[in-house]
Amino acid sequence: MPDENGKKSLAMVVMSGDFDKLVGAFIIANGAAAMGMDVTMFFTFWGLRALKKNVRTGTTLFGKMIGLMYGGDVSKSHPSKFSFGGMGRWMFNKMMGNHKVQTLPQMRDLAVELGVGLYPCQMSMDVMEIPQESFIDGAQDPVGVGFFLLKAQEAEVQLFI
Amino acid sequence: MPDENGKKSLAMVVMSGDFDKLVGAFIIANGAAAMGMDVTMFFTFWGLRALKKNVRTGTTLFGKMIGLMYGGDVSKSHPSKFSFGGMGRWMFNKMMGNHKVQTLPQMRDLAVELGVGLYPCQMSMDVMEIPQESFIDGAQDPVGVGFFLLKAQEAEVQLFI
Amino acid sequence: MPDENGKKSLAMVVMSGDFDKLVGAFIIANGAAAMGMDVTMFFTFWGLRALKKNVRTGTTLFGKMIGLMYGGDVSKSHPSKFSFGGMGRWMFNKMMGNHKVQTLPQMRDLAVELGVGLYPCQMSMDVMEIPQESFIDGAQDPVGVGFFLLKAQEAEVQLFI
Repeated sequence: MPDENGKKSLAMVVMSGDFDKLVGAFIIANGAAAMGMDVTMFFTFWGLRALKKNVRTGTTLFGKMIGLMYGGDVSKSHPSKFSFGGMGRWMFNKMMGNHKVQTLPQMRDLAVELGVGLYPCQMSMDVMEIPQESFIDGAQDPVGVGFFLLKAQEAEVQLFI
Repeated sequence: MPDENGKKSLAMVVMSGDFDKLVGAFIIANGAAAMGMDVTMFFTFWGLRALKKNVRTGTTLFGKMIGLMYGGDVSKSHPSKFSFGGMGRWMFNKMMGNHKVQTLPQMRDLAVELGVGLYPCQMSMDVMEIPQESFIDGAQDPVGVGFFLLKAQEAEVQLFI
Repeated sequence: MPDENGKKSLAMVVMSGDFDKLVGAFIIANGAAAMGMDVTMFFTFWGLRALKKNVRTGTTLFGKMIGLMYGGDVSKSHPSKFSFGGMGRWMFNKMMGNHKVQTLPQMRDLAVELGVGLYPCQMSMDVMEIPQESFIDGAQDPVGVGFFLLKAQEAEVQLFI
């Protein structure tokens, strides 16, 4: 329901780390914020990449494998189709640039500027061994699923991406 | 919230172009329309295929590559699992036919008949170089994410597929 | 809207049978149930695996192929990334165990205990030739999309996973 100031809100879970899904998530989030909505993005599992700086993560062997294979910051995400070992991302960036669409890192930074709440999931961080220091400054402190659910209960719109 | 006639509504983003996801999207949409709900489907990225006629698209090299590799109309979509170079789609169509479930093109056409609003995303069309002429007659004029968000704010149910 | 007892509710479609998506679905569902929400999970297509016992299914050749390739119970699901022929699941289970996160079968059983409504989709069962006897005792009787939509209309939160 609208809050005391009449603001409507959007709450989304972002579990995917795919380039195209993240582009979709940030276009929706930034559009909603620009319309004056209060926006919460809850990043879990692969989605955590959206908040990462370009640093290596992982402490155990498995964590290091994840850090290596699924590492890098948001600019390293691959499209869910037509990945072509990185070619796909380059192609989409080119096509988006041709039409003056922002890059994914620009969209993420705009979300921070617009006051979108970017929350990493604590449990996913633990399991994937991704520490809070590896996130950009604009990310909020980690939260749990209960936080998301409280936001979602009050939100006019909820999405799982 | 219900509109002045007490109609409830459903707003969904359809970003996937996978056979199984599209089947799910149209079964939900048509079910909701049959129950008297007002239904809006906002097709983005790969989801645009659901609205396409069987024509080639693309103007630049990249656009033509997308038009070639991800071309065809909705009948050419592959399941997200067990694609087998087209075998998977055939298999599912057969199994669906055995149980008198409609084909995907039939579901899409039923959605048009039931008055489901089928809206292509203008930005996705631009980036993927898919012009409005390549869509079926039942498709609405292209819209932006703001249109979807206004529909979603008023809808009882929102989904991202 | 909250029911007569003021209970809020969550309705989700679970179409994915991927390990990570199912983990996400059950963490959200169990978190919501623990917060006192009324939770409905509607399992379609690949998601039906979440309710299956470890039995073979299928009557026609195609149904048997699906039963063989996508068979087993929930413990046999693969992550959507890093499957590595089963290695990925083992790796994630190990990492989750290191952090005292439940296994996926434990999460599913907890959902039953917490009173989460686990509903299989009748049409998906028909098409994929998965009979009701192949489901765990905690599963509800099969329902159709109309059942889900009625639940979703009344729910504060709706998700498609």
